Amino acid sequence: MDFPAEDASVFVRRRTRLGDLVPDPVIVFGGRPRPRNYAANTLPFRADSHFLYLVGANLPDAVLVGREGSWELFMSPTPPDDAMWHGVRPGFDAIARSTGVSRVRPSDELRAALAGLDLATVPAIDPSTRSFQASLLGRTWGAEDEGSGSAPLGSRDASLADALVALRSVHDDAALTHLRRAAEGSLAGHLAGMHSTGSGLRESTVRAAIEAEFVARGMDCAYGSIVTVHGEILHNHAHHHILEDGDLLLVDAGAEDAGWASDVTRTWPVSGRFSPTQREFYEIVLRAQLASIDMVRPGVRYRDIHRRACVVLTEGLVDTGILRGDPESLVDRGAHALLFPHGIGHLIGLDVHDMEDLGDRAGYGPGWQRSQQFGLKYLRLDRVLAPGTMVTIEPGLYQAPAILDNAELAGPFDRDRTLDRTRLAMFRDVRGIRIEDDVLCTEGAPDVLTAAIPKGADEVAAMVGDAGAAGYGRTR
Amino acid sequence: MDFPAEDASVFVRRRTRLGDLVPDPVIVFGGRPRPRNYAANTLPFRADSHFLYLVGANLPDAVLVGREGSWELFMSPTPPDDAMWHGVRPGFDAIARSTGVSRVRPSDELRAALAGLDLATVPAIDPSTRSFQASLLGRTWGAEDEGSGSAPLGSRDASLADALVALRSVHDDAALTHLRRAAEGSLAGHLAGMHSTGSGLRESTVRAAIEAEFVARGMDCAYGSIVTVHGEILHNHAHHHILEDGDLLLVDAGAEDAGWASDVTRTWPVSGRFSPTQREFYEIVLRAQLASIDMVRPGVRYRDIHRRACVVLTEGLVDTGILRGDPESLVDRGAHALLFPHGIGHLIGLDVHDMEDLGDRAGYGPGWQRSQQFGLKYLRLDRVLAPGTMVTIEPGLYQAPAILDNAELAGPFDRDRTLDRTRLAMFRDVRGIRIEDDVLCTEGAPDVLTAAIPKGADEVAAMVGDAGAAGYGRTR
Repeated sequence: MDFPAEDASVFVRRRTRLGDLVPDPVIVFGGRPRPRNYAANTLPFRADSHFLYLVGANLPDAVLVGREGSWELFMSPTPPDDAMWHGVRPGFDAIARSTGVSRVRPSDELRAALAGLDLATVPAIDPSTRSFQASLLGRTWGAEDEGSGSAPLGSRDASLADALVALRSVHDDAALTHLRRAAEGSLAGHLAGMHSTGSGLRESTVRAAIEAEFVARGMDCAYGSIVTVHGEILHNHAHHHILEDGDLLLVDAGAEDAGWASDVTRTWPVSGRFSPTQREFYEIVLRAQLASIDMVRPGVRYRDIHRRACVVLTEGLVDTGILRGDPESLVDRGAHALLFPHGIGHLIGLDVHDMEDLGDRAGYGPGWQRSQQFGLKYLRLDRVLAPGTMVTIEPGLYQAPAILDNAELAGPFDRDRTLDRTRLAMFRDVRGIRIEDDVLCTEGAPDVLTAAIPKGADEVAAMVGDAGAAGYGRTR
Repeated sequence: MDFPAEDASVFVRRRTRLGDLVPDPVIVFGGRPRPRNYAANTLPFRADSHFLYLVGANLPDAVLVGREGSWELFMSPTPPDDAMWHGVRPGFDAIARSTGVSRVRPSDELRAALAGLDLATVPAIDPSTRSFQASLLGRTWGAEDEGSGSAPLGSRDASLADALVALRSVHDDAALTHLRRAAEGSLAGHLAGMHSTGSGLRESTVRAAIEAEFVARGMDCAYGSIVTVHGEILHNHAHHHILEDGDLLLVDAGAEDAGWASDVTRTWPVSGRFSPTQREFYEIVLRAQLASIDMVRPGVRYRDIHRRACVVLTEGLVDTGILRGDPESLVDRGAHALLFPHGIGHLIGLDVHDMEDLGDRAGYGPGWQRSQQFGLKYLRLDRVLAPGTMVTIEPGLYQAPAILDNAELAGPFDRDRTLDRTRLAMFRDVRGIRIEDDVLCTEGAPDVLTAAIPKGADEVAAMVGDAGAAGYGRTR
């Protein structure tokens, strides 16, 4: 059970603003600890992100209820034997003070307290919490939609979801403090990863060095770390390959501070030296990333940033001779997606894909929907940016067999010789490169929270295997 | 999706033996990936332990069905986009070969394949899996009993559970290979933890050094690591305290190899030197541990080992002058539980408390039940040991305010002056000590899988802060 690091006024203000946006009564479920393989062996507890935003504390089995402008928490009292196993827990009064709610009440009063209220809620991600929520509120959502955000919402619930999106997509100072701390954790992790890299080691050794920096700081991994010499597989969570000279190592790993995420990708050469072909691709990706970051400004539509990244990447690929044609027209046809199939980024905040539990409600502006075009269909965000909104910018280039060997996707570009496979084969030592930063939209220039993490080709190469600088060393 | 490391014949043999013990048809659910905070951000997937025992692979959403002596797996086919994100997955034929089942079939054939069968099953721990299981089989278990093992079983299900207990409580060679590997991971972790310890560091720094050794080996934590200067709180999962000279650091951390657990506790002085009082308590705990380990032999009732540990600890406390009286009589009265409130250990295998998802069905011999006496009520195991059974042996001494300040528990021993609080106060720099190993019962002498991890007082003290030896170093 963690207390909020910040003053209770932060959460009072957030709840008041929520109340200004949506009529109460509302109810938000914190979630419950989940067993790993039996009841006493629980996974680390992390409360639901909406709950964390409004309460700031990882309170297991807690429920937040707002009505008539007042907010209460309902929680299970601590069982008698508990102090021996877990130490003395804060009492209900201390929890009320630290979170700023008017009262903390025992959960067995919950049903009576809710009687007759027409409560707005958002469906919980955790199935066990959702089933409790469904039974308490007498409504259901499809079990097959758990966590996908595709549960259809009634109008009261939709209003609550929209209000949460409005609040959470513009970060306040307390949020930014955590987001900056998470970025510092990611900095330490990526530096340790670069330092610990060396030929003959396993991917998991580098992963260990990175995650040890998070753990040492009391932080979590915001998501499963990708540490792979096969970056062409986009979500490669295997870590057993041996690093070899000539490989590029793609690392997508981010720390989470008090629930707030960072999301960072760097790609570096195992040997400490890029080959000429690797450097050429790397510089293309970096150019696209810098051009995209520069567009993170108020009033810009995010899809236009995606488009800009596609055009810069395509210009680079035309320069190499891999693609033939006019870059803008090639992007219109989707040729870039042969090597850059995913979106340029997403919202980031308490969730690494922020508020993705609500589906595209947060990511897509009102009335806008995902395209079904290959490439564009993986774009998780299309909104007009505002000051305080934070996004990732993460272009990449990949030689993915699943795409390049797919006749339906690649065939049209083979047939009209847009794609020069002979030229592409010369770049076979570049399997996957991605460069990703977390960028805050401000009234002025974009604020890159992860800017301290080296990303110039010479910079990252210089860090590799620098064991003298390593906080966490290497094991063979 | 992991393939088994061993030959399919291992799993064929286990399933055949299960079939000899319980009539089919039976159905075992592997479980499904669980979202962390939204659907695409899943927690690391670990299949249900019964499924892992019989199939050996972490196959998400898979179901094992045995009938008429033949075994089939049902799984969801890989979606079309999947290879781009996750690489090419093994096909159904490859999975069938590697696990030795006769066929792998798509899950949409499951309902039809089960029609009319009276299937034995054990309730899944994961709520989402359990609700699928309940709907598929048309039976229910109480949601409030999730994972607690207290769900009442029908006679067919009880027979399956008993057969699984009979098999899994005697480890075969394939199991022992993994259990020994897990013990090696724990050795590396504890050594790194000792090396990384130093005054002024945070507990989380030592935790990071330990877990990095697990991660580097591709292993998981078998349970949430305890790394604390407040060992008097038995399940202390906080890691934010600063280590100070004079503190003892209690570390209960174990690696898990391919699902198989280890469970190890060591306690060492932050400064590298035990105070005389710390050393005196340490030697008492170590004596109790060695005496208990020596009793792990075929035909011995585990509760008698617990009793022996209590007596040796009490003898030590009488020698220090903290308790007064005859040790055997003191143990009869439960005086030892003031400083040793928990049980001497538990089964260990795929689960760190092996098969605790079945409640006390695995831990307690037929007809035996837990005592309600303070101390004995936390004894998780009371069986007659057999060759091939593995247990932990983990005595400790703790000055827990939750016990010593509890008038109901401590009052009787204060009133008749059995407990000398003035003497006890002289040991106030010993908050908590535990020493724990994993011990295999064999036909001959007990086989301590974790024996290579230093545990003599001088040995552990010599390891502390030996940064020169550290694989993973230290961060301030």
